Amino acid sequence: MHVTEKGLEFRASGVVTLTTDFGLADPFVGVMKGRIVGRHPDARIIDLTHEIPAHWPAEAGFWLARSFRYFPPGTVHVAVVDPGVGSARACAAIEAESHLFLAPDNGLLGAVLESVANPVARRVDDQALQRAGVASPSATFHGRDIFAPLAAELAAGRLQPADLGAIVHDLVPGWLEEPTAGLREVAGTVVTVDRFGNLITNIGSEAVGAGHVQLAELDVGPVRRTYSDVASGASLALIGSGGLLEIAVRDGNASQTLKAGRGARVQVVR
Amino acid sequence: MHVTEKGLEFRASGVVTLTTDFGLADPFVGVMKGRIVGRHPDARIIDLTHEIPAHWPAEAGFWLARSFRYFPPGTVHVAVVDPGVGSARACAAIEAESHLFLAPDNGLLGAVLESVANPVARRVDDQALQRAGVASPSATFHGRDIFAPLAAELAAGRLQPADLGAIVHDLVPGWLEEPTAGLREVAGTVVTVDRFGNLITNIGSEAVGAGHVQLAELDVGPVRRTYSDVASGASLALIGSGGLLEIAVRDGNASQTLKAGRGARVQVVR
Amino acid sequence: MHVTEKGLEFRASGVVTLTTDFGLADPFVGVMKGRIVGRHPDARIIDLTHEIPAHWPAEAGFWLARSFRYFPPGTVHVAVVDPGVGSARACAAIEAESHLFLAPDNGLLGAVLESVANPVARRVDDQALQRAGVASPSATFHGRDIFAPLAAELAAGRLQPADLGAIVHDLVPGWLEEPTAGLREVAGTVVTVDRFGNLITNIGSEAVGAGHVQLAELDVGPVRRTYSDVASGASLALIGSGGLLEIAVRDGNASQTLKAGRGARVQVVR
Repeated sequence: MHVTEKGLEFRASGVVTLTTDFGLADPFVGVMKGRIVGRHPDARIIDLTHEIPAHWPAEAGFWLARSFRYFPPGTVHVAVVDPGVGSARACAAIEAESHLFLAPDNGLLGAVLESVANPVARRVDDQALQRAGVASPSATFHGRDIFAPLAAELAAGRLQPADLGAIVHDLVPGWLEEPTAGLREVAGTVVTVDRFGNLITNIGSEAVGAGHVQLAELDVGPVRRTYSDVASGASLALIGSGGLLEIAVRDGNASQTLKAGRGARVQVVR
Repeated sequence: MHVTEKGLEFRASGVVTLTTDFGLADPFVGVMKGRIVGRHPDARIIDLTHEIPAHWPAEAGFWLARSFRYFPPGTVHVAVVDPGVGSARACAAIEAESHLFLAPDNGLLGAVLESVANPVARRVDDQALQRAGVASPSATFHGRDIFAPLAAELAAGRLQPADLGAIVHDLVPGWLEEPTAGLREVAGTVVTVDRFGNLITNIGSEAVGAGHVQLAELDVGPVRRTYSDVASGASLALIGSGGLLEIAVRDGNASQTLKAGRGARVQVVR
Repeated sequence: MHVTEKGLEFRASGVVTLTTDFGLADPFVGVMKGRIVGRHPDARIIDLTHEIPAHWPAEAGFWLARSFRYFPPGTVHVAVVDPGVGSARACAAIEAESHLFLAPDNGLLGAVLESVANPVARRVDDQALQRAGVASPSATFHGRDIFAPLAAELAAGRLQPADLGAIVHDLVPGWLEEPTAGLREVAGTVVTVDRFGNLITNIGSEAVGAGHVQLAELDVGPVRRTYSDVASGASLALIGSGGLLEIAVRDGNASQTLKAGRGARVQVVR
């Protein structure tokens, strides 16, 4: 790594992560990978997840912000989740802590921006697209036609972050506020629902303490250690394996039982 | 690439794509990859999809025909979807546009044959299997025991397409006709149903024009620009992100609501 | 391969397989891969499956025992399925037939132990974790914090199996007994349920013969050749593509119809 005035500079490692809402039943993820290896045969492509809900880019940013440090410096992280796909939305790029993030400029990267040191944000301009050989007007599938070629050129080291465009300070803001801590409470949000229906919040264990957890108007009680601390069918709050506060129903599906999902407000009252 | 009398010759790039009906819950896809890297450690294996319905090989060919050009020349595309697996079905191989396709000779590759320039088709013979070290009689799981070794040898460049067998002109025909255009209508088929229940047809946007769309006896109306052009719960036709005509229900599941699925006939009447 | 007194020695090939209960909707599998390529950029990582039920590690061992020989010698097989994750459970390592297996010491590897020649088992000790740079006390997510770094060091050849710890003979026993054969019957277990609801047993075709199959108290009849040997809606026993006895319902879901699942006892009475 090369340290400059603005911190750890990005030096491509050849690793590319992919985060999308494409699912794995259709060939769209495979096609993106085809375009990447066509331009950079030595790319090592790693799927983060392809099950982000299409209407909820916030979840992509949430996972990226909590995952990227487990990848080697010089990784290019591509996230394509955009309710407005096909529109003329620009691509946002963030360089931080020797990693590079590419996503539609729709607020997806908000959680990354808030959690990194000294981020440098850019909006990808036409000159960068031309250097990457991307014919912008004809693009209909941005993951394949814009993000894949850009990621390949960046991962190959043929394109540098500074080539992407001018530094900007007005990326579209994130979808979720980071949790806010008051004197007597911490307020956060349900960011995702796992496959068991558990509601995963963006409130970290360090912020929880001995407080009572509230989901909208519902008192979920104190944070428990394990499911067996409550009766079958009862709701409970606990810290999940990722170190985040989550709300569950023992032997049940919290999202269905409590009729709550992504975006629901959660408070911890001390 | 090497240009010969018959066009762009196949030169192995080391990239292999996989398309199957195995799903990802069982280890069968992983086992195929194990056999490939055991023979060719430098293979770069990319999943196209493993969610093709077992009884519907047509969908594998459909996706391959529309995806393969996004992979580098010299890619080996393996597709294993066969309602008659375990039978003595031969393997078909098609060389076209510097790509190579391997699949059971059950019509799976029909869409590829119809969409490429100057295809060269072969049926894999016993001599080729022997050269690839495949003991044909003992094979029970063709993906693992026949297709994976063949793909590895081809991707490694140790086996050439011409080694696979004599050129044939009688591969089993495809499952679907390409759309037919009459004076006043275009007729096509629902090729796949996406995870939202949308019915994806094989009719391209260029063939649609200002016509009315009919699904069997149901008039779905003109092609719309967006979902919001109809009321919630209403059916509509629109062009999907892949450039294909699809039939959807706003805020609903078209396949369930309209009781239609793969193979249903669709007409555009001008 | 290097042959020693104790058989074929493990020499890292750089291939790593992953088997977990993480699913693919969350980024946990991707994060494990990030840690592996961060330490060993040339690792070739292959997913076996990430859909093992969390409470049923036996299925991971079952698939591993039946799959590992299709991977090249020198493969590191990592399996992380542990109902007691976060506990102070040690890691078990088994070296056998030039392959290396890593898993929680919770019986997961029982099926592997029973199916290989001359296994050498170890429990990973603190010294090995230190050599791999793993800070054991702070670990909360074992797949990411312990198994991924260990696998990377082993796949890179910087850590040898003998470095992992002393040889032990008291790994936690497997969850399932291998099928037992009496004079007139073979007894086994449903190991997994596939996505169609078929009940897959651990009884191999060679043990079945012309017997009658019983699922708990239910007589499923003789082993059939194909689904069409029974009426729609009827249950039947047959040999699946993996060479294992399975119980199905024609045009139906056997697990739901017969109210049976993983762990159910199956007998073949001759």
